[in-house]
Amino acid sequence: MRGRMQGDLPPGKPELSSYSLGSPIVGYGVARVVDSRHSDFKKGDLVWGRTIGWEEYSLITAPEYLFKINHTDDIPLSHYTGILGMPGMTAYFGFFDIGSPKEGDRVYVSSASGAVGQLVGQFAKLIGCYVVGSAGSKEKVELLKTKFGFDDAFNYKEEHDLDAALKRLMYFTEGIDIYFENVGGKMLDAVLLNMRHHGRIALCGMISQYNLEQPESVHNLIAVLFKQIRMEGFAVAEYYDQYSKFLDFVLPYIKEGKIVYVEDITEGLESGPAALIGLFSGRNVGRQVVKVAQE
Amino acid sequence: MRGRMQGDLPPGKPELSSYSLGSPIVGYGVARVVDSRHSDFKKGDLVWGRTIGWEEYSLITAPEYLFKINHTDDIPLSHYTGILGMPGMTAYFGFFDIGSPKEGDRVYVSSASGAVGQLVGQFAKLIGCYVVGSAGSKEKVELLKTKFGFDDAFNYKEEHDLDAALKRLMYFTEGIDIYFENVGGKMLDAVLLNMRHHGRIALCGMISQYNLEQPESVHNLIAVLFKQIRMEGFAVAEYYDQYSKFLDFVLPYIKEGKIVYVEDITEGLESGPAALIGLFSGRNVGRQVVKVAQE
Repeated sequence: MRGRMQGDLPPGKPELSSYSLGSPIVGYGVARVVDSRHSDFKKGDLVWGRTIGWEEYSLITAPEYLFKINHTDDIPLSHYTGILGMPGMTAYFGFFDIGSPKEGDRVYVSSASGAVGQLVGQFAKLIGCYVVGSAGSKEKVELLKTKFGFDDAFNYKEEHDLDAALKRLMYFTEGIDIYFENVGGKMLDAVLLNMRHHGRIALCGMISQYNLEQPESVHNLIAVLFKQIRMEGFAVAEYYDQYSKFLDFVLPYIKEGKIVYVEDITEGLESGPAALIGLFSGRNVGRQVVKVAQE
Repeated sequence: MRGRMQGDLPPGKPELSSYSLGSPIVGYGVARVVDSRHSDFKKGDLVWGRTIGWEEYSLITAPEYLFKINHTDDIPLSHYTGILGMPGMTAYFGFFDIGSPKEGDRVYVSSASGAVGQLVGQFAKLIGCYVVGSAGSKEKVELLKTKFGFDDAFNYKEEHDLDAALKRLMYFTEGIDIYFENVGGKMLDAVLLNMRHHGRIALCGMISQYNLEQPESVHNLIAVLFKQIRMEGFAVAEYYDQYSKFLDFVLPYIKEGKIVYVEDITEGLESGPAALIGLFSGRNVGRQVVKVAQE
């Protein structure tokens, strides 16, 4: 959503183009169908997807990114904006497909208590990786270590030297095999100094960069050459045809309590702008959800 | 060789560690065996490999990177320091394995008339890519367009704005699918602005960076995220077990004259230092070879 607030995006897919002033913001959401002329969706269906506006009623004309929810009462509907929706698939395909993890790999996740990061860490633990995360408050660091089962974690806002912090936490494991990148800028520079030979960097986001007039520069890119690192950006939408595969993986873990998910739910459309802006200073704890309307 | 002239390389494989002052420089070369206690090599054999010193006679104690040459008179022995040796394999595996090319892809090669670049361009043409190269003189640009068959080429030293140069040459092809990176720094930054969605960047070298006290910074890395680019460093030594596969591919093309190779041969050990230093200003045209000794 932040990206689409640029006025100067190049023409492309409608769902990636600049927002029009005066129109509702469109993002990912959960909704109930109140009327439908589309054969795949009928009145009463619950859906999640990308074309749902920040409004009480949305008219969806191109439902290509709309998924039906087979609702069961033991799963909160908000999960379809998080662990069972776009952020969950982002964590799953970014980590497993781009990260190419194997048991014993050393994984580092920035923005680790966020919508995606908290899942990457838990997925990594499930397959026997050593996982370190960073976040921006003492409370979040505690969450990482206690609730999400990270092996170690640090508060990046309290570290003057991110390179030293990574060396301290990754030292005995000799560096990082997989970096799940949500932040960019200085963090990426520090990580490059601590990657292992043949490491993988899954570029999921660079939240530190989106609000800058000029992007920060990165100095240590030569490490990608010398350490034969693979760095790859990915877009979750390219995996949407594998949604059922993802559900088959993640639902049992949720039902058995082996994966947990923390959400930060604010109420009312009027809380939306502050919730969105708060992401860039890390005000949220866990997946930020705005409840716009309720039946 | 330039890399090993750093005094502060971390301990690692002997062939990647810092040179010792007072010892001969070791690099890739062609030699004839004058004596051997190793069962794989016998007196009279011709060999190429990484452990051959800049000296008339070398003692090779660890021949793991030594390959026997099945010499035929129609191939110059110098080719085993180039098209049939390390640079040839670098171009082949870097382009085909890391670049994942397909017919019609738009390929850009920097340092394109060099030991590796001239081959990447020719390999790319063989499979039906559109290929643009850059080099540092009018003579080299002419070589690219006439001798090596690049579709287009430019002299980077005459361009004030590399981004504009790439847009001019790649414009009607809508950008770059594969960038074969030999240069780094400003060139990489300009390329990132011109990569296509799902482009690949094969990081082979960053010669603009090796002699800098501090590496240049790169500003446009966010393109890797937004365009879902894969950027990957590679090391040719990891492909050496596939040398025969490479020979089977390349030898027929050489014999049929469908691939050409330009070498810049200087005579005598005393010409070595200037030849090495000349690489960093682009004094050489084609593969730089130093003939240290001859039978």
